[in-house]
Amino acid sequence: MALYGRVALIGLGLIAGSMALAMRRGGLAGHIAGTARTDATRTEALRLGLCDTVHATATEAVAGADLVVLAVPIGAMEGLAAEIAPHLAPGATVTDVGSVKGAVIDAVAPHLPQGVHFIPGHPIAGTEQSGPGAGFAELFDNRWCILTPPEGTDPAAATRLRTLWEGMGARVDEMDAAHHDLVLAVTSHAPHLIAYTMVGVADDLRRVTDSEVIKYSAAGFRDFTRIAASDPTMWRDVFLTNRAATLEILGRFTEELFALQRAIRTGDGEMLHAYFTRTRAIRRGIVEAGQDTDAPDFGRAKTRG
Amino acid sequence: MALYGRVALIGLGLIAGSMALAMRRGGLAGHIAGTARTDATRTEALRLGLCDTVHATATEAVAGADLVVLAVPIGAMEGLAAEIAPHLAPGATVTDVGSVKGAVIDAVAPHLPQGVHFIPGHPIAGTEQSGPGAGFAELFDNRWCILTPPEGTDPAAATRLRTLWEGMGARVDEMDAAHHDLVLAVTSHAPHLIAYTMVGVADDLRRVTDSEVIKYSAAGFRDFTRIAASDPTMWRDVFLTNRAATLEILGRFTEELFALQRAIRTGDGEMLHAYFTRTRAIRRGIVEAGQDTDAPDFGRAKTRG
Ligand SMILES: NC(=O)c1ccc[n+]([C@@H]2O[C@H](COP(=O)([O-])OP(=O)(O)OC[C@H]3O[C@@H](n4cnc5c(N)ncnc54)[C@H](OP(=O)(O)O)[C@@H]3O)[C@@H](O)[C@H]2O)c1
Ligand SMILES: NC(=O)c1ccc[n+]([C@@H]2O[C@H](COP(=O)([O-])OP(=O)(O)OC[C@H]3O[C@@H](n4cnc5c(N)ncnc54)[C@H](OP(=O)(O)O)[C@@H]3O)[C@@H](O)[C@H]2O)c1
Repeated sequence: MALYGRVALIGLGLIAGSMALAMRRGGLAGHIAGTARTDATRTEALRLGLCDTVHATATEAVAGADLVVLAVPIGAMEGLAAEIAPHLAPGATVTDVGSVKGAVIDAVAPHLPQGVHFIPGHPIAGTEQSGPGAGFAELFDNRWCILTPPEGTDPAAATRLRTLWEGMGARVDEMDAAHHDLVLAVTSHAPHLIAYTMVGVADDLRRVTDSEVIKYSAAGFRDFTRIAASDPTMWRDVFLTNRAATLEILGRFTEELFALQRAIRTGDGEMLHAYFTRTRAIRRGIVEAGQDTDAPDFGRAKTRG
Repeated sequence: MALYGRVALIGLGLIAGSMALAMRRGGLAGHIAGTARTDATRTEALRLGLCDTVHATATEAVAGADLVVLAVPIGAMEGLAAEIAPHLAPGATVTDVGSVKGAVIDAVAPHLPQGVHFIPGHPIAGTEQSGPGAGFAELFDNRWCILTPPEGTDPAAATRLRTLWEGMGARVDEMDAAHHDLVLAVTSHAPHLIAYTMVGVADDLRRVTDSEVIKYSAAGFRDFTRIAASDPTMWRDVFLTNRAATLEILGRFTEELFALQRAIRTGDGEMLHAYFTRTRAIRRGIVEAGQDTDAPDFGRAKTRG
């Protein structure tokens, strides 16, 4: 028997699409209902076989669902929570996949009725692409999914959601929302802002023509452009809602950058060499933890494994 | 007939090893002689079939060579130039592959005798790995190699070197050394320093344990760690020798980062969205120019194409 009889996916982009395919792979959902903002996305999701039924409104999608997943940009979550609240089945679980947790909890929790379990989540997996066609069943395999259940969460509901993520290939961690938001500011939000900034600087420099920046991108810049090709709406919402932690990490980053700039200016080769040696160890840890391969990346022909 | 009768590779790491394999693939060199600092590297290069002969000293390696390639960290080039100068064959071409051009020219050119052609070069291709075993024949395929021939360079010698790079799969551009150093500060040197800095910040944060940074690296940070795993000696030398251009670009970067931080602080979502939309276009250009694929990268199982 399926883990959830009826799952409602609100939003049908990269994350929801991948969840749909991973749930099918694992036989985890009896029926997958979905909805998105535009008709184009809904039609595409049906054509791709992501959903059994698509619905014009979130209200219709959630009717009778025992699991509701908010998989939209963070800024859209409050409105949707308010809209679906009166239509949620008693005992249903509501979760989300937003990249920030504190702000999502503040926006969503107040709208949900008694008797509905709200268990926020965030799969640490993604690509720079978006839309229903970007999803694939393996996205979560061997990746972490962080759940931030508020105090007093029903243990059975939490275990069931954890089992779902494990069934989709992920490993599950629990922590409080504030800690999540700080960790992600380090591993994701600050790096994204930095990549956007560096690509913006390159775009601005008139002495270095666009075509040169593109031709010679293989030298390191290329990775920044990939990160900086991520969805503008999603990332605007992330920065606006994880403001404090992101600004704190960026402050630390600037401080450190100034120290390295000073070492360059004064010709302190020893400091630079020691610094660059230290940062290598983290890379080794990531490869050992299975979060990347140590195959050299030179930007061409990649396959999914 | 081979383009060069005898090529001497000084240094036998990633770049020289890839050149050796690419020259063999194209039948471009009659004999490949090599030398490196340590016995271990020399033995390994012979075992891998990179060289026909290896030599304990650069002096022996360059004897009778019509092409000499300096493929060592930038800081080692001046000493080697002084050492080999008296032993260079008349009419030989000396080139290098250093990532900075102005400082290499200042360090090497004064030592070379009349009648030897000095044509500096820089292949815009690499990975984060180093050593003789890291080389592969396809590294330069469809990548750019920049030559910075000083005024008055013998046109026949320049054409011959250009033909070599094209035979190794590369496309060749010419520009002056100062412009090269500015362009590369944008596409490579500043991005590397930024990646090193961000990884250093993550490593420093005691509230976010190492293991969390590693577990959740898939969220963007992972690409920074790959860049920041590059060879410390090579990169120390790059920053010390392309100081002015790197600091100029980092100054622009900081200015821009402050503007984005201010937008986050004041909640200016429109500014952020417009900025993130603009940076997407550069990515499209890079994919269209064949310098990367648009396959989503999620850090696992990659193959060379
Ligand atoms: N991408 C990642 O790397 C990643 C990783 C982990 C978590 N997340 C989080 O996952 C969530 C979704 O991201 P994604 O990458 O899947 O985005 P996506 O591919 O851009 O898809 C977003 C979906 O939300 C729908 N949508 C937007 N506004 C809506 C509204 N007001 N009402 C109903 N549907 C609406 C869109 O519909 P239309 O297509 O019709 O506009 C689309 O189907 C975000 O909160 C993000 O923070 C993303
Ligand atoms: N890696 C890249 O992405 C890249 C891209 C374009 C250009 N470059 C440039 O290419 C050059 C070489 O880089 P690489 O990546 O090939 O480095 P690598 O893999 O670390 O190899 C460097 C080689 O230089 C040798 N060497 C070091 N000091 C020496 C000395 N004093 N005398 C003789 N040999 C010495 C080393 O010998 P041992 O092994 O015996 O120490 C080693 O064989 C650098 O100038 C770099 O700026 C690198």
